[in-house]
Amino acid sequence: MNQYRVLIQAPDSTGLIYLASKVFFENNLNIINNHEFVDNEQNMFFMRSVVSGDIDARQLKDLLSAALPERATIKIKLARKKNIVLMVTKEAHVLGDLLIRNLEGQLDANIVGVISNYNILRPLCEHFEIPYYHISTENISREEHEHKVLSTLEMFDSLDYIVLAKYMRILTSEFTKRYKNKILNIHHSFLPAFIGANPYKQAFERGVKIIGATAHFVNENLDEGPIIEQDIIQVDHSYDWVEMQQAGRDVEKVVLARALKRVLDDRVFVYGNKTVIF
Amino acid sequence: MNQYRVLIQAPDSTGLIYLASKVFFENNLNIINNHEFVDNEQNMFFMRSVVSGDIDARQLKDLLSAALPERATIKIKLARKKNIVLMVTKEAHVLGDLLIRNLEGQLDANIVGVISNYNILRPLCEHFEIPYYHISTENISREEHEHKVLSTLEMFDSLDYIVLAKYMRILTSEFTKRYKNKILNIHHSFLPAFIGANPYKQAFERGVKIIGATAHFVNENLDEGPIIEQDIIQVDHSYDWVEMQQAGRDVEKVVLARALKRVLDDRVFVYGNKTVIF
Amino acid sequence: MNQYRVLIQAPDSTGLIYLASKVFFENNLNIINNHEFVDNEQNMFFMRSVVSGDIDARQLKDLLSAALPERATIKIKLARKKNIVLMVTKEAHVLGDLLIRNLEGQLDANIVGVISNYNILRPLCEHFEIPYYHISTENISREEHEHKVLSTLEMFDSLDYIVLAKYMRILTSEFTKRYKNKILNIHHSFLPAFIGANPYKQAFERGVKIIGATAHFVNENLDEGPIIEQDIIQVDHSYDWVEMQQAGRDVEKVVLARALKRVLDDRVFVYGNKTVIF
Amino acid sequence: MNQYRVLIQAPDSTGLIYLASKVFFENNLNIINNHEFVDNEQNMFFMRSVVSGDIDARQLKDLLSAALPERATIKIKLARKKNIVLMVTKEAHVLGDLLIRNLEGQLDANIVGVISNYNILRPLCEHFEIPYYHISTENISREEHEHKVLSTLEMFDSLDYIVLAKYMRILTSEFTKRYKNKILNIHHSFLPAFIGANPYKQAFERGVKIIGATAHFVNENLDEGPIIEQDIIQVDHSYDWVEMQQAGRDVEKVVLARALKRVLDDRVFVYGNKTVIF
Repeated sequence: MNQYRVLIQAPDSTGLIYLASKVFFENNLNIINNHEFVDNEQNMFFMRSVVSGDIDARQLKDLLSAALPERATIKIKLARKKNIVLMVTKEAHVLGDLLIRNLEGQLDANIVGVISNYNILRPLCEHFEIPYYHISTENISREEHEHKVLSTLEMFDSLDYIVLAKYMRILTSEFTKRYKNKILNIHHSFLPAFIGANPYKQAFERGVKIIGATAHFVNENLDEGPIIEQDIIQVDHSYDWVEMQQAGRDVEKVVLARALKRVLDDRVFVYGNKTVIF
Repeated sequence: MNQYRVLIQAPDSTGLIYLASKVFFENNLNIINNHEFVDNEQNMFFMRSVVSGDIDARQLKDLLSAALPERATIKIKLARKKNIVLMVTKEAHVLGDLLIRNLEGQLDANIVGVISNYNILRPLCEHFEIPYYHISTENISREEHEHKVLSTLEMFDSLDYIVLAKYMRILTSEFTKRYKNKILNIHHSFLPAFIGANPYKQAFERGVKIIGATAHFVNENLDEGPIIEQDIIQVDHSYDWVEMQQAGRDVEKVVLARALKRVLDDRVFVYGNKTVIF
Repeated sequence: MNQYRVLIQAPDSTGLIYLASKVFFENNLNIINNHEFVDNEQNMFFMRSVVSGDIDARQLKDLLSAALPERATIKIKLARKKNIVLMVTKEAHVLGDLLIRNLEGQLDANIVGVISNYNILRPLCEHFEIPYYHISTENISREEHEHKVLSTLEMFDSLDYIVLAKYMRILTSEFTKRYKNKILNIHHSFLPAFIGANPYKQAFERGVKIIGATAHFVNENLDEGPIIEQDIIQVDHSYDWVEMQQAGRDVEKVVLARALKRVLDDRVFVYGNKTVIF
Repeated sequence: MNQYRVLIQAPDSTGLIYLASKVFFENNLNIINNHEFVDNEQNMFFMRSVVSGDIDARQLKDLLSAALPERATIKIKLARKKNIVLMVTKEAHVLGDLLIRNLEGQLDANIVGVISNYNILRPLCEHFEIPYYHISTENISREEHEHKVLSTLEMFDSLDYIVLAKYMRILTSEFTKRYKNKILNIHHSFLPAFIGANPYKQAFERGVKIIGATAHFVNENLDEGPIIEQDIIQVDHSYDWVEMQQAGRDVEKVVLARALKRVLDDRVFVYGNKTVIF
């Protein structure tokens, strides 16, 4: 018995659930769970079905393609551990949180490597036996540095996602295009407030009473990619910006972990600049 | 074109989504949205479909009954304003909140009457032109009082729900059985903590750092009915129990209103002592 | 016995708490509660003491002025009901919420009038016997309209605060300067995100997963005044912008009410573009 | 210059702030921050002052003792890293979170050892170079096991706190009395709901819509000690109890870490069964 996550996206039309569920039924596939949504503004249909049964993925895809309208996008995903690379700079809290989740078997991914522009987090990664790639920015241009990072990434055979776990450098659009909807970032503000550098300092100066974190896919525009998950914590006048930053760590790591879990579970559709998450 | 909310509950078996969506498809019904859940522990399937098309409710029910396994429960609901009675004692905040929502067209119900054991809230109801029934408890037994309440309720032809909007008396099991899964209550704690009288005082004495509210259906056991909605607010040592009570008002009214909205939208399945909410 | 709220703001220096508490002690004033904060960046000291005893306010102020450094600002406030005017447009939920709080004795203010550019909310105000001033914008310029509003406000002898309870017009800087730190507004986003018109639509288009509300003092820059209170609710892809707007109503009214309560309790210091709230 | 945290608890009487601040002023101590609270029900005064200046702790305590009423309790604490022992069973998430915080310099404590009834978490602790003491329960009585734990704890010279970071055994009252108000626990429910074993299973069976975590001091009654910190997350019908448990991990670790931070900062007063936290 195989278990598949079937993701269907199509311009909305009558009968899509029927047509898909007919394929499942006629092939003795049991629907374990099913979510459906129609974006009425875009007239777009989304469905995610988890099905189990005795069929191979190729065959299931062919049957669904034949049954559904031509413009439907169909993805068949196995419930398997995805391969991810983490990119970090100096801060340990997000990286460490992911390493602990991985240790406890809660992450459902293989962390195939950690890439950093500093060497600071190497010992932490080595504790957990994760390969660490220090790619220094010293004496090289932004382009050269990024090419080295890209070369390192290309070493990994079947890389599913790149997770920026407090990676404090901006990626070029060449980079983001190559890994379209494959790069997750955690931004330390409730976007779209406080785009760019040092959002906690911006938040402190504005005198806000909440600070937040946003996990999003990275696209060519800084901090403007599709949002996956957001959360906030309350602060007050007694927090200076360093204390905001310290308090914010907990929401950063939890928001990124929640977003990553949904992505790894194949629960996230990206369309336009938005996400549909089942 | 009619629009229906179709609620199906059945012991889980393969093909339920297919069988229901086949009926929809073959009758040219468009699925506007669809939610499905299987409780694996109880092996119970739940589905809520909003469909529109040219069919009458009776016919749709017959077709679904014929298509689905015998043990399936099928309910066809029109999107219409439900008739509700509110029961209150002395506090205005929950009642007032519902009256304002109603005024703004946000409640999606007809408040056909307000019943109270006091006369205090009569002027407020009269402002909003809602009939007010004062049923005093003076000089009569608990049973006599409740019979008067029941008689008043029976005057209303097609009563859908009774909402205890801070009604501070306990109903007998005779009452709760007569209106099984038709009575909503707001309890001013995060149940199951602080069952019974004066939960804020209990919370204060325990020294908790959060207080909450729980909207639930009322059954024969005090504060033990199926939970619909819960939320909390943070408190600290500086709150005495009266201040907890005051702060709690906002969460009480919002939690009850959210729960009621879901019930009125026919989004809530009750089974055993739990709810499934789509 | 009188009870005073003493608010002291001064450039920080050693001994400020001692100097103030000495005055209280030597005049047999009991400190009921006391809060203190130093903004280290601005080197600014804030203290709020609630004291009770047998002294008049004038005398207490003179004694504190003599005891404290020359540059200290000292305010002595009686715990009394403040006079407030509400300004509204068409939406009832924030106005209604304040009226219900007032009815229940939870607001601690006299609502001396409601001003609106529409006549829609008149019946609601009349239910609660609050004078309603309809100042239409038809056939008059922005300046003329605002002058009429200002003239109406000037009728009220001792007006403490103006509360924009979903007043959908922008005030001129002439207006905001005249009532500096006296005008509260509720903005329906977590500022500084989504400044300006229709923040829910902006939020929907950005695909955010949280929406919020911000209560702030109004200054000459739109939505940039000192923030008093903020809160958020979670949303997801299934909300269109009208549903975001509906869901947001609850957080709008609660955030404004909490902010207003703090202001009415003389708990809020405004300095620069920030607030210190005890 | 030394910096002290001065904690004063006393039956309330007029002039306590004055009397304490007079000592600070006359000894050229600068008050960096100051918090005060009176529990009116118990007539109890609490004050925490952070002061800096040129005085030794002994002398400051003597001066305050002389100035304040006889029944006042005065504690003078240096801002220093406290020594803590963690006790764990099998789960890594709370332990790992504390180890990462420690690594990042965010914990403000020395983790002098980890004690466990299993050997499972030894490698994790050894990564971080923390001594690990496996004290098996096999073939020995509860009393013998606890005596071995107590002997191990006695090895540490100046132990400040014991942190039960998901230690799944119940301590005897002999143990809890010996370390009165020195043992912190994280309980995986919003106490007082779901005391005892497997609160997630209890929560699932009750059908709650929120789950929580409570950090508290341990006393002789299981899960009934003074509460320090609580928080919750929203769940729905789609969570089985294992998924509740997984989702709850994030709130467990964050709540315990926040509580521990406050305790380490000497911000927490315990009195009766409650806490006052500045």
